[in-house]
Amino acid sequence: MGLREIGEFGLIDSLVEQLGAGDESVTLGIGDDAAVLTPASGRELLVTCDAMVEGTHFFRERQDGRSLGERIAAVNLSDIAAMGGQPRWAVSSIVLPSDVEPKWLREVYQGLDAGLSRHGARVVGGNTAAGPALVFDLTLIGDIETGRALRRTGARPTDLVCVTGTLGDAAAGLAILSREPSCAPQEFRDLVVRRHLAPTPRIDVGRWLCASGAVGACMDVSDGLAGDALHLCRASGVAIHLDLSLLPISLAARAVAQALGSEVEAWATGGGEDYELLFTLKAQRVDLLPRLSQELGQKVTVIGSVEKGPPAVHWHRNGQSAAIEARGFTHF
Amino acid sequence: MGLREIGEFGLIDSLVEQLGAGDESVTLGIGDDAAVLTPASGRELLVTCDAMVEGTHFFRERQDGRSLGERIAAVNLSDIAAMGGQPRWAVSSIVLPSDVEPKWLREVYQGLDAGLSRHGARVVGGNTAAGPALVFDLTLIGDIETGRALRRTGARPTDLVCVTGTLGDAAAGLAILSREPSCAPQEFRDLVVRRHLAPTPRIDVGRWLCASGAVGACMDVSDGLAGDALHLCRASGVAIHLDLSLLPISLAARAVAQALGSEVEAWATGGGEDYELLFTLKAQRVDLLPRLSQELGQKVTVIGSVEKGPPAVHWHRNGQSAAIEARGFTHF
Repeated sequence: MGLREIGEFGLIDSLVEQLGAGDESVTLGIGDDAAVLTPASGRELLVTCDAMVEGTHFFRERQDGRSLGERIAAVNLSDIAAMGGQPRWAVSSIVLPSDVEPKWLREVYQGLDAGLSRHGARVVGGNTAAGPALVFDLTLIGDIETGRALRRTGARPTDLVCVTGTLGDAAAGLAILSREPSCAPQEFRDLVVRRHLAPTPRIDVGRWLCASGAVGACMDVSDGLAGDALHLCRASGVAIHLDLSLLPISLAARAVAQALGSEVEAWATGGGEDYELLFTLKAQRVDLLPRLSQELGQKVTVIGSVEKGPPAVHWHRNGQSAAIEARGFTHF
Repeated sequence: MGLREIGEFGLIDSLVEQLGAGDESVTLGIGDDAAVLTPASGRELLVTCDAMVEGTHFFRERQDGRSLGERIAAVNLSDIAAMGGQPRWAVSSIVLPSDVEPKWLREVYQGLDAGLSRHGARVVGGNTAAGPALVFDLTLIGDIETGRALRRTGARPTDLVCVTGTLGDAAAGLAILSREPSCAPQEFRDLVVRRHLAPTPRIDVGRWLCASGAVGACMDVSDGLAGDALHLCRASGVAIHLDLSLLPISLAARAVAQALGSEVEAWATGGGEDYELLFTLKAQRVDLLPRLSQELGQKVTVIGSVEKGPPAVHWHRNGQSAAIEARGFTHF
């Protein structure tokens, strides 16, 4: 059945029935004018929203419904991770052209539900509307111990600049999806494509960093390291010095770049959507990094330092001043 | 300057700078990965979202930016009103085609901010993305005394069915905008067009009804009385009997219907977007209605009663069984 046969309310029913049950904080979920939720005492709320638009962020022919749903969850979860918070509740708004298959849409919702519930969050409400373009907009609410949110404003001179995981994989994956080369090894191609289509939100790292009390500023790398680091500089009123030779770049991204004749450093500095955490750490607490790696199995790399100075990102290579061409992703 | 010249972050800055300041519950507003908010103790959260899509819900050439922003606020505020809640915080997500004028968009945000702040709510975050269709999606968070939310499930046999204001005005306004007749008196035409383009959320009525403790079920009339009353029947497991001769229909809607050769009753039963409150009241508390009218200056009309029986809406006219052709608005 198509959208027209199933109708708006039939569609909503079929999307809702496959969602996981809420927890005791959900007094009233989907089906009324608004959801009713019980916030935990002693905690602040975190609220973020992020939309994915067909043709801008995804293409139906390149991505199955389930992984798209997981990706929608991930980009929002990543914002809660960047604050150090615990994801709780989501509301999902979709704009649907008439050619969308209800079956595919149910798969998107399955992925969304799976992605959220893996990190303790639930869909508690939503909206559907007809329109000429396919849009998924998610608002995610999390919570955090009062006064403990990791902001962008807390970077201080002498802090170390750190990043989780590897940078540039998602850009490598996008390049493969756009240009379909066959010359890089299949396992590397699969890895970076997965990093583009199914990023991993660093919720556990965010919670760990929040509990450590040693983090200055934190944000996620969604628009690309160069642009995001600049946002952090401006928010904190500091300069950041980053060394290109320290950037964590995967073997897979290097191999794909070589196969395509692309610059892997440009992907690592300018490619967005890696959804790793960029944070600053008090230098005397550098001992926390091996502990974090050990406890969470999450690699963290020191890529530079915070210094006094007007907000700017200064690039180096092996200690020598260097220039990059990368710029972050921006709409329009 | 167009969107391309001003850029994504320039646009966000220019939208944000004209928003009103938050209150002390907003620990951290726009500009980080997520907003940080302090929920009030002893209260539950209410969360709703509603999107407006160009071509489906509005047309740029028919509506100035400011009133569109107020309307986006109103449709979401109405959901919080229907729960009896107090609006608090909103996040706004927009999808923008490249031909949108930044100046017009700033007017939309001015209207959004004005509409929200009139009822005590603030924009605390958002997202912008490029896309082929213009979409405004708002998520609104409110709060309410714990255990007091007005649900759709509470209608009980012998309850009276009541509605605020008048029904069918928004449909009359839409008919005028679609067909541009000149035969109805100008003041009536202006009134119903305003009711379509700038609905009034009944926040104060919702709060009053919540405090009264005499309301069974409550919802807002967004898809049309017939369809919305059926939703209420199903949620509560009751039948509703409504009398067409009791429906509150404005002189303006009657005059416009006559001028267009349309059925005003079809507008009142099937036209959506009036954003009045439909609620059930314990019959022995009918004395509350004149008090509500007096204290809030808000007309409320008894239009029927709740009875035992399978979920269905039964129509009457002057006590005699009657049929209607109206059906509620549905997408697809």
